[in-house]
Amino acid sequence: MKNYLFVLKEGSPKYKQIYEQFKSLIEQGNVKADEQLPSIRQLAESLQVSRNTTLTAYNQLVAEGYIRGEGRKGFFVNPLEPSLYEEPPILPNKKKLEKKSSIRVNFRTDVVDQSHFPLKRWRRIANQILTLPESYRYGEPFGEISLREQIATYLLQSRGVRTDENAIIIGSSTQQILINLGHILQEDYSSIIVEDPGFDGAREAFQFHYFALEYLPVNETGVDLSQLNQMNSGLIYVTPSHHSPYGVSMTIQQRQTLIKWANKIQGYIIEDDYDSEFRYTEQPFPALASIDATRVIYLGNFSKSFLPGLRISYMVLPDPLLTRYKKQFRNFESSTSIFSQLTMAKFMENGEWSRHIKRMRLVYKRKMTFLVSLLKKHFGQKISIIGEQSGLYVLIKLYLRVSEEWLIERAFSNGVSVRPTSIYFIKNHSEHPIIKIGFSGLSFDELEDGVNLLKQAWL
Amino acid sequence: MKNYLFVLKEGSPKYKQIYEQFKSLIEQGNVKADEQLPSIRQLAESLQVSRNTTLTAYNQLVAEGYIRGEGRKGFFVNPLEPSLYEEPPILPNKKKLEKKSSIRVNFRTDVVDQSHFPLKRWRRIANQILTLPESYRYGEPFGEISLREQIATYLLQSRGVRTDENAIIIGSSTQQILINLGHILQEDYSSIIVEDPGFDGAREAFQFHYFALEYLPVNETGVDLSQLNQMNSGLIYVTPSHHSPYGVSMTIQQRQTLIKWANKIQGYIIEDDYDSEFRYTEQPFPALASIDATRVIYLGNFSKSFLPGLRISYMVLPDPLLTRYKKQFRNFESSTSIFSQLTMAKFMENGEWSRHIKRMRLVYKRKMTFLVSLLKKHFGQKISIIGEQSGLYVLIKLYLRVSEEWLIERAFSNGVSVRPTSIYFIKNHSEHPIIKIGFSGLSFDELEDGVNLLKQAWL
Repeated sequence: MKNYLFVLKEGSPKYKQIYEQFKSLIEQGNVKADEQLPSIRQLAESLQVSRNTTLTAYNQLVAEGYIRGEGRKGFFVNPLEPSLYEEPPILPNKKKLEKKSSIRVNFRTDVVDQSHFPLKRWRRIANQILTLPESYRYGEPFGEISLREQIATYLLQSRGVRTDENAIIIGSSTQQILINLGHILQEDYSSIIVEDPGFDGAREAFQFHYFALEYLPVNETGVDLSQLNQMNSGLIYVTPSHHSPYGVSMTIQQRQTLIKWANKIQGYIIEDDYDSEFRYTEQPFPALASIDATRVIYLGNFSKSFLPGLRISYMVLPDPLLTRYKKQFRNFESSTSIFSQLTMAKFMENGEWSRHIKRMRLVYKRKMTFLVSLLKKHFGQKISIIGEQSGLYVLIKLYLRVSEEWLIERAFSNGVSVRPTSIYFIKNHSEHPIIKIGFSGLSFDELEDGVNLLKQAWL
Repeated sequence: MKNYLFVLKEGSPKYKQIYEQFKSLIEQGNVKADEQLPSIRQLAESLQVSRNTTLTAYNQLVAEGYIRGEGRKGFFVNPLEPSLYEEPPILPNKKKLEKKSSIRVNFRTDVVDQSHFPLKRWRRIANQILTLPESYRYGEPFGEISLREQIATYLLQSRGVRTDENAIIIGSSTQQILINLGHILQEDYSSIIVEDPGFDGAREAFQFHYFALEYLPVNETGVDLSQLNQMNSGLIYVTPSHHSPYGVSMTIQQRQTLIKWANKIQGYIIEDDYDSEFRYTEQPFPALASIDATRVIYLGNFSKSFLPGLRISYMVLPDPLLTRYKKQFRNFESSTSIFSQLTMAKFMENGEWSRHIKRMRLVYKRKMTFLVSLLKKHFGQKISIIGEQSGLYVLIKLYLRVSEEWLIERAFSNGVSVRPTSIYFIKNHSEHPIIKIGFSGLSFDELEDGVNLLKQAWL
């Protein structure tokens, strides 16, 4: 391995200077393809900078495709594709990354289907909204009334939740809403019960306010509510319609038990109903808030059911919390785009959204069925499939003597990107590795290629 | 005054029942125009509900135009316009409110000029952005790279701030950014110095994290930095380019003093550069962050300079804070619309935004000059005008023996809406009432009508 002697100047961040000098060495051919770079620690010591600085520089180089990490083996230089350096950068930057990386099929979970998006109808409404005077002002702090009215109508018709526009608060993401909500709840609560495994983003939002976390075990067959009475907190965050990540739903008995518990101890249930729209085997289960809303804070969003990029989430607050929330945040500007809100409201009012949901339920159901049949065909008894009844992803539990890390890296070097699930687990670990596979953005051909590549990589 | 006997049932919010029963009494003509309603306290006592409940009901009735508050005199029924109750509600609801209210000229401060908005060019880009795969995914947690690159270029060219896309964090509003930033800063600081008078929204965002506030006096001629050394906090929030609300700018000597102070005590300056684009008398003053960025957290946004409804704000963080911020929020979803971000990035890349700023500087300058000349003509020595060198509003200090409340109510009953400034003042009160007048959304004719109506109301 070479020694690199860089001269680091004042006036520009050091990580950037390191990044730029490596970039230039690679582009000029002074460091060859597949050559190994010094480790983060070695480089930090030789340059007398922090490891954070060298790590940031390497991360940037990896992100731009100049080098690659190979786990514990270290960092290596990627082969140059000369043409890339002759073209000006393409906007947006992600395109560049995808071109440089050798991923052929990305089972990403942060995407919706683009090919069935009602582009013309959405554009027509969006273009109208831009002519309204409302579009040139700051909006309502708790969200535009027209959207809140549409959400109230939807919640009654589709989720059985009786509410009105005044009890609905619009925010820009579930986490942003949980940060604001947490500010109100911390007056009465210092801890919260969360599912294990469970949505990591919610846990982080609760930790923003230093809530202590208690863990309620969930397994593939459902939640274990028997432990509820041993817990100290009166606050619980759950995903009852489609558990994140297992995909199971709470039975009606479990729902009633949970509501009884909250009423008895005068606690609150935060019900995150994040993707109830896509259930393939039967009607969606009723929301907790449809059974008894007095102790339920209901959360919903349009990220899965329509477009994540809109950044619209919402919550329905029970009365005492609503009063406190409105008092606390009356002088806060809305964090949600007025255009997203007004366009979505009109789109819902015209019936376009419910038509879109119906159409997409079929599209996603076909993709799910196809993916599951491919997985069964190629992997047989070596895997079990979890959560194929709903949602935009499926879990694969692998009965192989390998680690999650190995599975992800093998897939990656064979041109497939899949997601870990270990980030969701706290104490209630799975005996076998579980991989998350999103299918919403892929075509049938891509699904087929992807599963074939996974088989080559893993078996 | 009548006694009202309402039957309040379980199952629906009490304020709503009170609101609905009054609404129905008014619509059916059982309560006549200009009849006085019971006070909030009386009604709460007779119905045995909290004052908050009756206040909420009345607020809703006022918002919908059924009743009006006349300060200490109480609440009165508005005359009915029968046609309004025959039509279905118009989307969005604000139209309804405006139609019902008798405001002829609204000197609102939460709006930008619609008539000069480059609608076609914006639409063309927005429509292109919707065809990109990026638009169907969740975005980058700290903002889309393409927009951060454009902001970095803008900051260097227009504000003299040297930074790069990695040090820029995109958020959806100044307050949302301050809530996240406050989470990082509260590790080292428990109090913050703010300007008095100063932006109330920033104060509220700091109070979200229970920061104690210390007040630095500002008057019409500028900030008083002599008190800085008696303060305990090492953190300060300032608006140096265009003080909110006085409109004064810090001199270069004051800027240097402030930076020296921050370096000496190893504190941080939060520089909110919210509308530096619109300066009418000379070039904008350089940003604090252009002099020495090591102790400066720079905040900017597009709400004044382009469109508030986009909900894009941003900050530039110095290195140690940047590392902490990225570690804390790496698993948080962006709260800013991807469409807003990608469209704005392309709009900036094409040079459209800087052309728009240049055009709007002239438009707003003409409006400001016209408004100031009208005010001088009609009010002469009875007022002084504060802050006409920049921004989208002006302050009027009135040398009349009346209160701010009287001025606002008199204007309102004469068909003009103007804004208070008392909300910005903590201890450093003004001897005379000061009224805030926004002109950005008004035509020349409306400006003329508005000032005439104000003269009738006030003199």
